[in-house]
Amino acid sequence: MAEGAAARLRLAGLCFFLQLLTIILFAAFVRYGPESDPGLCSPQSNCSRRDPEPGSGYPRFRDAHLQALLGFGFLLAFLGRYGPGSVATSLLVVAFAVQWALLAQGLFYFSPKGKIYVGAQSMVSADFCTAAVLISSGAVLGRVNPIQLLLMTLLEVPLFACNEFILLSLLGISDSGGSLTVHAFGAYFGLMVSRALRQPRVDERGEQQDAGRQPDAFAVLGTLYLWIFWPSFASATTAQEGAEPWALLNVYFSMAASTLAAFVLSPILYEEGALQAAQLQDAALVGAAVMGMAGEMLLTPFGALVAGFLASHLSLLGSRFLSPILSSRLKIQDTCGVHNVHGLPGVLGTLVGTLLAGLATADAYGGRMESVFPLVAQGSRTASGQAWWQLCALPLTLILAALGGSLTGALLGTRALRSTPKSPERESKVLREVPEDGVNPEASDEELGGSTLA
Amino acid sequence: MAEGAAARLRLAGLCFFLQLLTIILFAAFVRYGPESDPGLCSPQSNCSRRDPEPGSGYPRFRDAHLQALLGFGFLLAFLGRYGPGSVATSLLVVAFAVQWALLAQGLFYFSPKGKIYVGAQSMVSADFCTAAVLISSGAVLGRVNPIQLLLMTLLEVPLFACNEFILLSLLGISDSGGSLTVHAFGAYFGLMVSRALRQPRVDERGEQQDAGRQPDAFAVLGTLYLWIFWPSFASATTAQEGAEPWALLNVYFSMAASTLAAFVLSPILYEEGALQAAQLQDAALVGAAVMGMAGEMLLTPFGALVAGFLASHLSLLGSRFLSPILSSRLKIQDTCGVHNVHGLPGVLGTLVGTLLAGLATADAYGGRMESVFPLVAQGSRTASGQAWWQLCALPLTLILAALGGSLTGALLGTRALRSTPKSPERESKVLREVPEDGVNPEASDEELGGSTLA
Amino acid sequence: MAEGAAARLRLAGLCFFLQLLTIILFAAFVRYGPESDPGLCSPQSNCSRRDPEPGSGYPRFRDAHLQALLGFGFLLAFLGRYGPGSVATSLLVVAFAVQWALLAQGLFYFSPKGKIYVGAQSMVSADFCTAAVLISSGAVLGRVNPIQLLLMTLLEVPLFACNEFILLSLLGISDSGGSLTVHAFGAYFGLMVSRALRQPRVDERGEQQDAGRQPDAFAVLGTLYLWIFWPSFASATTAQEGAEPWALLNVYFSMAASTLAAFVLSPILYEEGALQAAQLQDAALVGAAVMGMAGEMLLTPFGALVAGFLASHLSLLGSRFLSPILSSRLKIQDTCGVHNVHGLPGVLGTLVGTLLAGLATADAYGGRMESVFPLVAQGSRTASGQAWWQLCALPLTLILAALGGSLTGALLGTRALRSTPKSPERESKVLREVPEDGVNPEASDEELGGSTLA
Repeated sequence: MAEGAAARLRLAGLCFFLQLLTIILFAAFVRYGPESDPGLCSPQSNCSRRDPEPGSGYPRFRDAHLQALLGFGFLLAFLGRYGPGSVATSLLVVAFAVQWALLAQGLFYFSPKGKIYVGAQSMVSADFCTAAVLISSGAVLGRVNPIQLLLMTLLEVPLFACNEFILLSLLGISDSGGSLTVHAFGAYFGLMVSRALRQPRVDERGEQQDAGRQPDAFAVLGTLYLWIFWPSFASATTAQEGAEPWALLNVYFSMAASTLAAFVLSPILYEEGALQAAQLQDAALVGAAVMGMAGEMLLTPFGALVAGFLASHLSLLGSRFLSPILSSRLKIQDTCGVHNVHGLPGVLGTLVGTLLAGLATADAYGGRMESVFPLVAQGSRTASGQAWWQLCALPLTLILAALGGSLTGALLGTRALRSTPKSPERESKVLREVPEDGVNPEASDEELGGSTLA
Repeated sequence: MAEGAAARLRLAGLCFFLQLLTIILFAAFVRYGPESDPGLCSPQSNCSRRDPEPGSGYPRFRDAHLQALLGFGFLLAFLGRYGPGSVATSLLVVAFAVQWALLAQGLFYFSPKGKIYVGAQSMVSADFCTAAVLISSGAVLGRVNPIQLLLMTLLEVPLFACNEFILLSLLGISDSGGSLTVHAFGAYFGLMVSRALRQPRVDERGEQQDAGRQPDAFAVLGTLYLWIFWPSFASATTAQEGAEPWALLNVYFSMAASTLAAFVLSPILYEEGALQAAQLQDAALVGAAVMGMAGEMLLTPFGALVAGFLASHLSLLGSRFLSPILSSRLKIQDTCGVHNVHGLPGVLGTLVGTLLAGLATADAYGGRMESVFPLVAQGSRTASGQAWWQLCALPLTLILAALGGSLTGALLGTRALRSTPKSPERESKVLREVPEDGVNPEASDEELGGSTLA
Repeated sequence: MAEGAAARLRLAGLCFFLQLLTIILFAAFVRYGPESDPGLCSPQSNCSRRDPEPGSGYPRFRDAHLQALLGFGFLLAFLGRYGPGSVATSLLVVAFAVQWALLAQGLFYFSPKGKIYVGAQSMVSADFCTAAVLISSGAVLGRVNPIQLLLMTLLEVPLFACNEFILLSLLGISDSGGSLTVHAFGAYFGLMVSRALRQPRVDERGEQQDAGRQPDAFAVLGTLYLWIFWPSFASATTAQEGAEPWALLNVYFSMAASTLAAFVLSPILYEEGALQAAQLQDAALVGAAVMGMAGEMLLTPFGALVAGFLASHLSLLGSRFLSPILSSRLKIQDTCGVHNVHGLPGVLGTLVGTLLAGLATADAYGGRMESVFPLVAQGSRTASGQAWWQLCALPLTLILAALGGSLTGALLGTRALRSTPKSPERESKVLREVPEDGVNPEASDEELGGSTLA
């Protein structure tokens, strides 16, 4: 118990220090300048993605923030015994990551006045970054304590911002929904952190991904929230009012086909039981992840249906055949299966986007060319040139994510930060765990006694 | 068990076939034309209801899609033991119905170019159609398997589109919130399917509607979602910016009065216990259903209060006195009580709308006349003429729904599609059923063993 | 049992009477005038707060209504054993309060024509009022029956409207997010009602605030909803499109810092266990409450971080040290801890707002001065004069709330309204209480038998 109290006090101290640091940095550098209209994205404003129309920043901001919380919070609640505890840790990560991302992303757009100007669009970018952090934490859930998660956030956010800046601003890549910058980056970063943190005894608990005892209610709710809000999140940065519903609709089509695909393949791959709620949630996420890059490039709806259908198949096959290999051969434990749900679809989405970029013609796109591929519209690049750059961004991001993840994992694994090896299953739990059956006091007490961060 | 696996494989095959079919039809016919601005609803665009202002399609689209999922998913979770399983089936139905509705509704607006153009408004129409399908499935929940549900969707969607086209486009009926086209149609279609599927042994399980063991948490959440999103859904197609909040506010007033009415009548009708969460959910739905047609016709708020108050009383009386008659005399099993929650209020809403149409004067409506009753505003019709057409639409819709439902039910009842009579309670469950008490592994296994689609 | 049935019938009668009364008053006085555009707030329209831009009323209205339901419904579900029952009572209160508030607030803006004109903005104001009523009910939850709650609503709403009119219209106070008019007023009103209703035996059940057996799932969901919607609610009345995102962002920053503060102080103050989900919910509410007044006054984000960080510390310290004093010395039972979550932060927010008002300069605010401090912008007042008035509003509101609460509590405590002293724990439950473990019929029946309003 004393050890648990000491751990919580260390966490308290870290939270205090981080918040103080953020307050000081905000006081020194962050302003709501007179230029930060909701939609304006000037070099002075801190926004790394194209700006929406003025006055339209508000609803998208809300959806994006919502998505970063709900969709992933519930995905991370995947692991049955960690129930509400995962959501608390996610909240802590989100509360810090949003502030830290505004600073880190602002660094790359430092205005001549030496200030970082924030507006609604800055929050959207910060939420995209937070989403990547949550994806990464999904890979290591249950095997890190909150202190390690906060430090992972501290290190991952600047790396995310750096990769995003290189891809979107320097290389002129189009990735409005984050297939590459968010899903793929977050997944592979997390997987490398997981690998660096591997412990021998973890193999004994190979049941971590066994969904036999999940509280499916959370997964069900999470799936519904994904359907409601993720399409808005994924299309939050598509520039023109004319383009926006296409990206949105493409995501919906992709998610619909992905869901039907789950019903197709699941009974074939998994013979012992019926479909699980979490698989439907994964199907929805996969459908959205693959549409991240291609969402605003697809000109016909059936392409979205095909992409979603294929991505879901790929994800399910990966979950069935690839994850065991990752685990046994490469020693990469993937608690929430982020490789199948975010990694593979993110890569597939990038390849689809590359293909579509190469096929883009001014006739087909018309006025939309300027918002989707501005450099091609200006004439600075050809469509195939754009496709080549889109393709090059893939290994670049994967390398950055892998290197960053390995380094971060090595740092997190130092003895000072690790919890005692005696109680690995108590890590990541900051909430007193109360079973859903709140009317059973005896079981509650027993659960409580055994589950506090001791 | 082998039988359950065979059933799931048949479902997998059907899903694959349906998705393939949809992909092919989309590839052949469906486009995002350059005309499909978010708000534009030209003859080329596929939208069966009046269009909102350009640029305003986006938030309504999100709400409508949300409503089709949440409100009904939780209503369908009414039946305790089916918990999360119903939501999965609903998701499957929604994922397919949305695609199929876009095609079916598009058929009636086939452009000269031979293409179906979709935009945000098309999605709203598709969601209205999906809502009707979910209402129908509420009548047969627990007595059909997912294959039958998918086939019911396959048949109901074109019939819905046909009825909607006749009413809104040919007869010039005003029904922006779907009292008649969605609620009444869906309810009576489902009831006739239920009648055609009746089995003698069902009478033994007359307890299906007994709410004694519901997971009220789902009903509570569903009620809250209804309050949040249904008014937006129901007013999603009111044309002018000036009209829109009136319809919205009328729905809120109607739901408020309907809720108070539940507290008034429930203790009188049901003496043995306190109010149930599902009754509050029903009250909210009833208040919205009755406002579907009249929502934008009511010029004073108190009319909405009266309508909601009366509709709720009617619904509760129907639940108490009419449902047993339907069940015993007419052999119509109504699992989720859709007749009381959607059928009766839908009919009442139509009658109220008819009355208000007859009373409509240019002085009272002013500029709004053109959006609510365009034909009357143009002078092609008198107000009483409009009222006469509104009234004629009622038996027309009921006949179409009843005939379509009977035919569909007869088809679904063929031996090849029916599950074995030994396990009727296992139908409609595609999810492994996990009780909310996820920490009780013994009970979980027992439940699992007894609840998979075997 | 007979007593429970009699109580439910009395409640039914009261609901019928109140709805009838409201219908009659609406029929006589309430109209959707041709002037009630979504955004217009003329003297004829019933809106007590500044109007947003035309056409932008719609999304804020939805968020505000949502917030009044969800955020507080779940906060009020704090008390474990009352689970879904509290939400039903909250729904009843909301359904009535919204209608009554429209009438009461409309009274103060009676147009020359003798009519009350309502629009979307009126609903926002009515929701602010409803929020205050829910806060007050949080103080007495578990110790009042639904009849007493409805009568409390009947009395509190006009007092709220009166206080709001005096502050915002007569004194020209700026309080767009309701730190003073909603949070402080609601909290202290409820506390005085609680004091007037005190009973000796309540001291025996000092465990009411013991969160040991809460259904944390509700608190978790409530927290997420707060993060999503409260910032929109709190900034629903900030006038200009340019100002709006600042208030919104300030609320987010305040909530983020408040959340981290919970992780800082909680392990220090509470040694026996880990953080509870409800504490995170409280942290989010606190961060929003303190930003109510200052949200649109803060020109730099770090001020919001500091305010949220401090407010959360204050709230936790109050919960640890002040609540026991309130309970033992002043005999004020505070079931949901509304003093710490709404009272203290509301007062702190008022003080911060006063300070910022005094520091306001035309240079710093620019064009925003006119929307935040219109009288100062016109030159009718100096900044320090405005600050003085802001400060004077505090004791005025507290006195009005305290007096009104005491009177109301005295009325509610009359013998005729009180439930039998034998079963105080059965008050406030109108829903049949079903445990979350719906698959356990024996426990269900036992719970049912013991939990109906008998």
